Amino acid sequence: MNAGPRRWHAQQAWLARGSGGGLARDVLIEAHGDRFAAVTPDTPAGRVPPGTVRLPGLTLPGLANAHSHAFHRALRGSAAGDSFWTWRERMYAVAERLDPDSYYALARAVYAEMALAGITCVGEFHYLHHGPGGRKYSDPNEMGRLLIAAAASSGLRITVLDACYLAGGFDPGGVPRPLAGVQLRFGDGSAEDWAERVAAFGADPHGMVSPHARVGAAIHSVRAVPPGQMPQVMAWSHARGAPVHAHLSEQPLENAECRAAFGATPSQVLYDAGALGPRSTMVHATHLTARDIELLGGTQTCVCMCPVTEADLADGVGPAPELAAAGCALALGSDGHRIIDLVEEARWMELSQRLVSRGRGHFTAVELAAAATVSGHACLGWPDAGEIVPGAYADLVTVSLDSPRLSGAVAGDPLTALFAAGTAADVRHVVASGADVVRDGRHLLVDDVSGELAAAVRAVLS
Amino acid sequence: MNAGPRRWHAQQAWLARGSGGGLARDVLIEAHGDRFAAVTPDTPAGRVPPGTVRLPGLTLPGLANAHSHAFHRALRGSAAGDSFWTWRERMYAVAERLDPDSYYALARAVYAEMALAGITCVGEFHYLHHGPGGRKYSDPNEMGRLLIAAAASSGLRITVLDACYLAGGFDPGGVPRPLAGVQLRFGDGSAEDWAERVAAFGADPHGMVSPHARVGAAIHSVRAVPPGQMPQVMAWSHARGAPVHAHLSEQPLENAECRAAFGATPSQVLYDAGALGPRSTMVHATHLTARDIELLGGTQTCVCMCPVTEADLADGVGPAPELAAAGCALALGSDGHRIIDLVEEARWMELSQRLVSRGRGHFTAVELAAAATVSGHACLGWPDAGEIVPGAYADLVTVSLDSPRLSGAVAGDPLTALFAAGTAADVRHVVASGADVVRDGRHLLVDDVSGELAAAVRAVLS
Repeated sequence: MNAGPRRWHAQQAWLARGSGGGLARDVLIEAHGDRFAAVTPDTPAGRVPPGTVRLPGLTLPGLANAHSHAFHRALRGSAAGDSFWTWRERMYAVAERLDPDSYYALARAVYAEMALAGITCVGEFHYLHHGPGGRKYSDPNEMGRLLIAAAASSGLRITVLDACYLAGGFDPGGVPRPLAGVQLRFGDGSAEDWAERVAAFGADPHGMVSPHARVGAAIHSVRAVPPGQMPQVMAWSHARGAPVHAHLSEQPLENAECRAAFGATPSQVLYDAGALGPRSTMVHATHLTARDIELLGGTQTCVCMCPVTEADLADGVGPAPELAAAGCALALGSDGHRIIDLVEEARWMELSQRLVSRGRGHFTAVELAAAATVSGHACLGWPDAGEIVPGAYADLVTVSLDSPRLSGAVAGDPLTALFAAGTAADVRHVVASGADVVRDGRHLLVDDVSGELAAAVRAVLS
Repeated sequence: MNAGPRRWHAQQAWLARGSGGGLARDVLIEAHGDRFAAVTPDTPAGRVPPGTVRLPGLTLPGLANAHSHAFHRALRGSAAGDSFWTWRERMYAVAERLDPDSYYALARAVYAEMALAGITCVGEFHYLHHGPGGRKYSDPNEMGRLLIAAAASSGLRITVLDACYLAGGFDPGGVPRPLAGVQLRFGDGSAEDWAERVAAFGADPHGMVSPHARVGAAIHSVRAVPPGQMPQVMAWSHARGAPVHAHLSEQPLENAECRAAFGATPSQVLYDAGALGPRSTMVHATHLTARDIELLGGTQTCVCMCPVTEADLADGVGPAPELAAAGCALALGSDGHRIIDLVEEARWMELSQRLVSRGRGHFTAVELAAAATVSGHACLGWPDAGEIVPGAYADLVTVSLDSPRLSGAVAGDPLTALFAAGTAADVRHVVASGADVVRDGRHLLVDDVSGELAAAVRAVLS
C-alpha cells in the first residue's frame, strides 16, 4: 500500500448506489494511503493537480468476488460430466493433489486473473485445511495463510472464510457419515477444534490479520456440519463481528437429505441454529420454499448468487428477485471460476431470471452494480468499501466504453450499457487499497498472468 | 477477393466435424481464389513455403451468424422494458427512422463487429423493404442491396433472407389485421407481389447476386403471412433451391393467437403449408409441442437458436437437444445483437439447457462448433462452407489460447476450452472467401469499427 496523496480524474464514474443513480462526470478522486480522502465531481480536466492519473471511460468502485474456490480454476475447460455429483468427484481429485506450493502458485495466478477483471477483494471459501489423510501442517493454518499471501502478491484484499467441515453427509435420522478420502483434509473433528485452529490465525479483535486480510467463518453446508455444532461457529463469529458464509440449497438432493436427516429444510436448520442474520451470507440459495425466503429476508441474511456456476453445474435458477424483495442483500461470486467476470455474473443474474419468469427488468443496472460492489464487500466484512466516497477503501475499476461491444451502446446510461454488453475484457485500470494494480489492461504486480495460470494448472493436473 | 494461391500455417485447427473430432496440428492450408485448395496436417512449421501466414492458437472454419437483424444493434444498452412486446415497440421506433443512408452505415458497422468476432457469413433476416408509409423506393430492392454492399465493405458473405410480411397478426378465425404504422414499410401486399419484387434482385439461377451474396426467402412468421400465401413463397424458393427462414413460436402469445386463428400450432401451420423441409430454417422454436418437434425433425428442418436474445427477450429455453435428436440440424444467430459473440451463443445453448433440465453435457464442443460453422453456412445456402477442406470457401477464424480466460483451460481439448471459457475477444485473425479481413484483432477493411458503430447508432437514435 503506497502512502501519500494520490489522485485520479474519472471521465465518468458511478460513485455509489445512493446519490440519484450515482453517476457523475469529471470526478477528481483523491486518496490518502488506502482510503479515499476527497471525491469532487464536475472538476474540469484542465483544473486537476499535476500527477493526477486520467481514467477515461467509466469508473466504478472495485468489485468484490464474494464466493471463490481458487483451486476450482484448474477444472476450467474440462469435459462436463453429467451432473453436479460427477463434477464433484473431479473437483475432489484436484483437491487431493494440492500441496502448499502448488496451491499458492494456483491461487496467486487466479487472484491475478481476478484483478484483471476489476476485482479488488475476494472472499475465499476455504476448506482445504490439512495435509493428505488429514495430517495437520506444522502451522495448522498454513493453507489459509498462503491464500492471504497469494492475494497480497496479486494486489487484492481477501477475506478467508475458514470453513468448518465435520461430516460427509447425514443419513436419515441425522446420523453423520464419517469424512472419507480427500474430505479428511477438510475436517477439524469438532466445531470446538475448528474454533481453536482458526483462533491461532492470530487475528486482531476485528478479525484482521494484515491490512489487506481478514478471517471470517464458514459453515460449509448442512451436509457437512451437524446442527448441534453450528452455534459454536456462530459464537466465534459473534465474538469478533466476523462474517459467516454457508452453501445453501444448491442441489435438490441436498434438500432431500436434509429433510430426511433433520425433518426441515436447510434454511430452517440454519435458522434454528442461529446461523442466519445480517452478518451471514448464504451462497446459491437455489431451491427454496416460500418459508425459506421469509427466514432469509426476515433475518436480513445476505445471499451470494453465482449465476454462471449455477448454470455450469445445472443447479437451476434461484429466486433472486424474491429474496431481494424479502430483505436480502444480494452479492455475486465466480465460485468455480468457469469464468471470472462479475459483469457477466451480474448480467446472468438478470438473464437467467428472464428465462424462467418470461418477464424482463428484474434488476436495474444500479442494483446489479451494487451487488458486485458495496453488497459484496459488506458481506465479506468490509462495510467501508465498495463506494467511491471519502473514508472508504480506495478501490477503483475503470472500464473503457469504446470497445465494439460498448460503442453505440452508451447513448443512454453507461452503467446500463456495461451490464448489458460489457465484459471483463473491457477493464483497463484497477486500483485496490490506494495502489495501482492494473494499468491499460496489464497487471503491474504479476508480469505474466496467463503464463502463471497455465503453469499452475499444469502442475496440479499433471 | 484476391486471386492466386495463399497459404496459412495453423498451429492447431479444428477442420471439420467428421474426422475423429477434427482436431489437427501444424496444418498447412492453401487457397486459390475464394476456395481451399489443399489442407495438410502435420506439416512442420519449418517446412512451409515462403509467404505463409502463421496462425498461432486454434483455427476454425469461419463462423456463420444464421440470424441477424442488423438494425436491432441500435437498441443495445437501452433499458429493458418489461416484455418482448414493449421491446418490440422500441424496435419499431428505430425501424421507423431508418433511411438508406443511415441503414447502410449501421449495417456496415455491425457487420464489421461481426467480422471481429470471427463471423465470415451472415444471414440477414430482412423485412424493412420500403420507405415511410410503404412507398416503394425507385429500386424496390434498394434496402436489400445496401445490406449486400454493407457486407461486402466489411468483408463478409451474406444471404439476404428477404421476408414476406403481409399482415399485422390474425384475429380468431384467421381474419388478418392490416399492417399499421412502420409495418407498412415491411409489406408487399401479397406473396405474388413479394415474389415479383424479389425476382427483380436479378439473382442468377443459383440465387447469387454477386460472388459474396445470395438471396433467400423468409416467411416472417405465422403472425405476418396468411397460410394460403405461404406456398407461393415456397414455390419461389423451390425454383431456385434457395433457403427459407421463419420465426417460429418465440413467444407463448404467438402460439395462442395461431391456435385461435388457424386451430393449429405454428409448426403445424407451416408444415401444412409445405414450409418445413431440409432447405427451411425455423428461428427460435422455443415453445413447441412433442408433435411440433416430430414435424420439424421428420422434415429435417434446420433450427436456428439465438440463446442470448432468447434470454434477453425473456422468451424461454427451447428444446434444442430434443430437436437435434429428432433430426434437426442446429444453427446459431445473434439476432437482436445484445451481444455479437457466437462462442457465447453456443455456450448458452448448452448452459440454458442445464438451467432448465438440471443435467449437464447436452452438447459436445464439436456439436457446438458445427452449429456455429457448417450447419450455419448450410442453412444460409452455402453448403460448401464451414469446413476446412479442399473445395470449400476459404473462411478461417483463429482464436488465441493464451488469454487469462483460456490459459490453463486447454490441458485437454482446445475446442472444449474455447466453448467453455473463450469469447469473441479471443479472435485474432479472420479470413473470408480467401481474403484477410481481421489481423491481430484489427479489422483490415474498416479502420475504426467502434467509431463507426457509435456514429451510426447516434445517427439513428438522435
